[in-house]
Amino acid sequence: MKEISYAKTVERWEVLEVTVPGYSDHNPFTDYTIQGRFCSKNEEKCADGFYDGDGVYKVRFMPSFEEPYTFEIKGSFSEKTYRGSFDVTSPKENNHGPVRVADTYHFAYEDGTPYYPVGTTCYVWSLQSQELQERTLKTLADSAFNKIRFCIFPKHYDYNLYEPISYPYEGTPCDNSLLTKDNLYDYIGRAPGNHWDFMRFNPEHFQRFEKRVKDLMDMGIEADVIVMHPYDRWGFSMMDKEADDLYWNYVIARLSAYRNVWWSLANEYDLMLHKNLEDWERYADIICKKDVYNHLRSIHNCKSFYDYSRPWITHCSIQRQDVYKTAEYVDEWRIRFKKPIVLDEIAYEGNIQYGWGNLSGQEMVRRFWEATCRGGYAGHGETYMDPNNILWWSHGGELHGESPERFKFLLRILKETPVLGLTPMRAQWDEVAARADGIPADKGGYYLYYYGFNRPSFREYYYDDLHTYEAEVMDTWNMTITKAGIFKGKFKVKLPGREYMAVRIRCVG
Amino acid sequence: MKEISYAKTVERWEVLEVTVPGYSDHNPFTDYTIQGRFCSKNEEKCADGFYDGDGVYKVRFMPSFEEPYTFEIKGSFSEKTYRGSFDVTSPKENNHGPVRVADTYHFAYEDGTPYYPVGTTCYVWSLQSQELQERTLKTLADSAFNKIRFCIFPKHYDYNLYEPISYPYEGTPCDNSLLTKDNLYDYIGRAPGNHWDFMRFNPEHFQRFEKRVKDLMDMGIEADVIVMHPYDRWGFSMMDKEADDLYWNYVIARLSAYRNVWWSLANEYDLMLHKNLEDWERYADIICKKDVYNHLRSIHNCKSFYDYSRPWITHCSIQRQDVYKTAEYVDEWRIRFKKPIVLDEIAYEGNIQYGWGNLSGQEMVRRFWEATCRGGYAGHGETYMDPNNILWWSHGGELHGESPERFKFLLRILKETPVLGLTPMRAQWDEVAARADGIPADKGGYYLYYYGFNRPSFREYYYDDLHTYEAEVMDTWNMTITKAGIFKGKFKVKLPGREYMAVRIRCVG
Repeated sequence: MKEISYAKTVERWEVLEVTVPGYSDHNPFTDYTIQGRFCSKNEEKCADGFYDGDGVYKVRFMPSFEEPYTFEIKGSFSEKTYRGSFDVTSPKENNHGPVRVADTYHFAYEDGTPYYPVGTTCYVWSLQSQELQERTLKTLADSAFNKIRFCIFPKHYDYNLYEPISYPYEGTPCDNSLLTKDNLYDYIGRAPGNHWDFMRFNPEHFQRFEKRVKDLMDMGIEADVIVMHPYDRWGFSMMDKEADDLYWNYVIARLSAYRNVWWSLANEYDLMLHKNLEDWERYADIICKKDVYNHLRSIHNCKSFYDYSRPWITHCSIQRQDVYKTAEYVDEWRIRFKKPIVLDEIAYEGNIQYGWGNLSGQEMVRRFWEATCRGGYAGHGETYMDPNNILWWSHGGELHGESPERFKFLLRILKETPVLGLTPMRAQWDEVAARADGIPADKGGYYLYYYGFNRPSFREYYYDDLHTYEAEVMDTWNMTITKAGIFKGKFKVKLPGREYMAVRIRCVG
Repeated sequence: MKEISYAKTVERWEVLEVTVPGYSDHNPFTDYTIQGRFCSKNEEKCADGFYDGDGVYKVRFMPSFEEPYTFEIKGSFSEKTYRGSFDVTSPKENNHGPVRVADTYHFAYEDGTPYYPVGTTCYVWSLQSQELQERTLKTLADSAFNKIRFCIFPKHYDYNLYEPISYPYEGTPCDNSLLTKDNLYDYIGRAPGNHWDFMRFNPEHFQRFEKRVKDLMDMGIEADVIVMHPYDRWGFSMMDKEADDLYWNYVIARLSAYRNVWWSLANEYDLMLHKNLEDWERYADIICKKDVYNHLRSIHNCKSFYDYSRPWITHCSIQRQDVYKTAEYVDEWRIRFKKPIVLDEIAYEGNIQYGWGNLSGQEMVRRFWEATCRGGYAGHGETYMDPNNILWWSHGGELHGESPERFKFLLRILKETPVLGLTPMRAQWDEVAARADGIPADKGGYYLYYYGFNRPSFREYYYDDLHTYEAEVMDTWNMTITKAGIFKGKFKVKLPGREYMAVRIRCVG
């Protein structure tokens, strides 16, 4: 039997992985268990390990303190108890720790750095060819995106008919040679001809997946991991309770030490007709017990919202419920749920036949600004027709739309907020306005107004007669900031009479 | 005393005016009454007359049948009974009679010709200089507009600070020399310094007004007469019950014989804080009793709808209640009120500072098509900044926007509907669809789909396997119609992936 291996030093909030040899007879995924206990002066955590194939077991740990740690690995996979110790070094520049909810409606990294999500969706980018995955990473590196939603399971849907590069289980998939764009819905759920052993994972599938989680982590991008989803022809959406629970435990054991992981219990949970409320609450229970790092947790709807007031839900991961009003509801939802509002799906920029996938870049960016100035966050996706059927929304690749460039401007403005996050503000009926909470008007008050599809030639503002205010006119589409002057008392700001303008006003004296 | 005068022949649905001399002592507006009885084989109508100044009384009558008529004029203004007779000739090409509600949700002229309202608003165009009024008429003549909303009383509001060419009453207005853009709201209602005799009308004011009603009638344009409104500094919005009722009776006696008159009891009735529900219902009662031609009647809201289910209301004259969703509610309102839905105010194309007056042409036209394909009608207005403060919305003049040209295309499409009006149709969640009611799919079925801000590259349609359908792709902004092919069974129509596209499908065999 080989010996235990692990790094002797690890960066704070990075993954310390302990590799241990163990039995590979019987079914190592179900017949053996493994657990590690990690101790330092300031913390003590127990984490489940997992079988990674080839007689190898692993336990992963994310240290939260810069101090010496010891650990002890014990389990039924071996007769030995393994012990070790390591040191934790300070985080590198790009490493701010996991993202947490901060100030009720916003997010910050564990080191206190504000985190303003600008998310995108590429459902199964990590199940495409390695070459395409590399292109996706390159595109992400050049973008403003700092969060990406993607699935562990492959996706079966229009524009998603071919097979993934790997499957999560041992077995063989149904024959897809009869599958066409016209009969794809006949295959929904569990198509005939699938043969899977839901008690035996395919470690290679998960190794690849977590390689991409780590790539994102190194790039400073949060991995919003969609653990379940309904767009399935392999039967992964219809497993029984035993298989589901085994899957959840395995996923948590493998992924939770990655600081950039967010748990999305499901995409469009309400379309998963074989799961009920009891199931979702049980999965949530497993996460709460087994994810010792308390990663962000949510669940994404198609039509009906999940009850986002449930205590285990850290933030709302919303799909808009109305075709016309989407981000416009963010301030109402804030009041209702008292949690960060993330509109992970507000329809995508593109030109496919479906109404959820053929917005203009302008409308997409407008929805982002509406969400922002109402104190929430919107998410991007892109669905342009492509001769090779590579649509960013599912496969990644390159971006073709006009909105992503504008998110860089939005993120810049968000990062210039003098406190953590914007708070919606009572304003005129025909404007959306936000302020930096906690800064009184006369102490450097900070205000952001957004006019969307309205095109005023000017607007008037008034805070008080004592202080001086600087106004800037921002063209959110053309990404320009123009100084409009320094004012006192009631003042008028000229605007160009175009759509998509914002005004930023700061008290300067 | 001079003799009675009137025309010996009149066109059907034109105005027969009988001029009669009478007493001009005391107050002829209140101390004398006059009534005419008009009889033919098919109708008998009693109509109030009115004092028109200079010792002249008039009674007007609109004949509805092509046959000989006799009349008898009697009243306290004279000791004589005047009798006469005239013949009614057939209407000229442009004269289809008054507009009536037809098929619950739509309109038709009395001769059965469908009437599809494409309305605009120029609140006080008829109180501007004669030269400007003539320019307005010229603009209307070159437009698709077939209905215009305008007021009898002058308007006091931003961009509306100067005096009208005449006042409806004898007296003198307040001094407006202290009035500025900044203090205009201090003058709301009854500014100090007004001296009016609400018991003595200024006939010249009404003569000018009805001259314009007739000009519009000759052009085939409906006059949606706003009888009361809150934007006032002269006190006309705050008269007592006696003055109000005298005004209503006078207006009805003067105007109701014009076939193109619609009664709009008020613009933004809910902002008239000195009137209550009882008042509105009393005015409605006066109209129902005194307007013997049963012209269309409605009342326009600012925020709260009037109860459009009231039996005297012939159609809904709605101002949108939401900034983002406007025409999108038309199908809901149809179900709720079971009357034609006319969105007389859905914000205006322009660039002034107010959110109700700075839409793009695209958004304005989009709202029209949304209303249309949901079985209703939208209305236009225009508020572009102008160096001379001439804004179409209030003053008329020229149009500067991009939407009016597109209404010609919309009206053409509406007129090609094979039945009276479009009926909203259950369709996909991401499309707005209408059909020509009463034509089954297999008997020349007619369908109109609208995609608004969505940009599909194609859509699929299916009605049956037996019949043949012709599809046309319509670009509602560029005003083009492109034949897309003849199809059977399930078929796919290619679209350009641009915004504002519609698809028209007709069964052709």
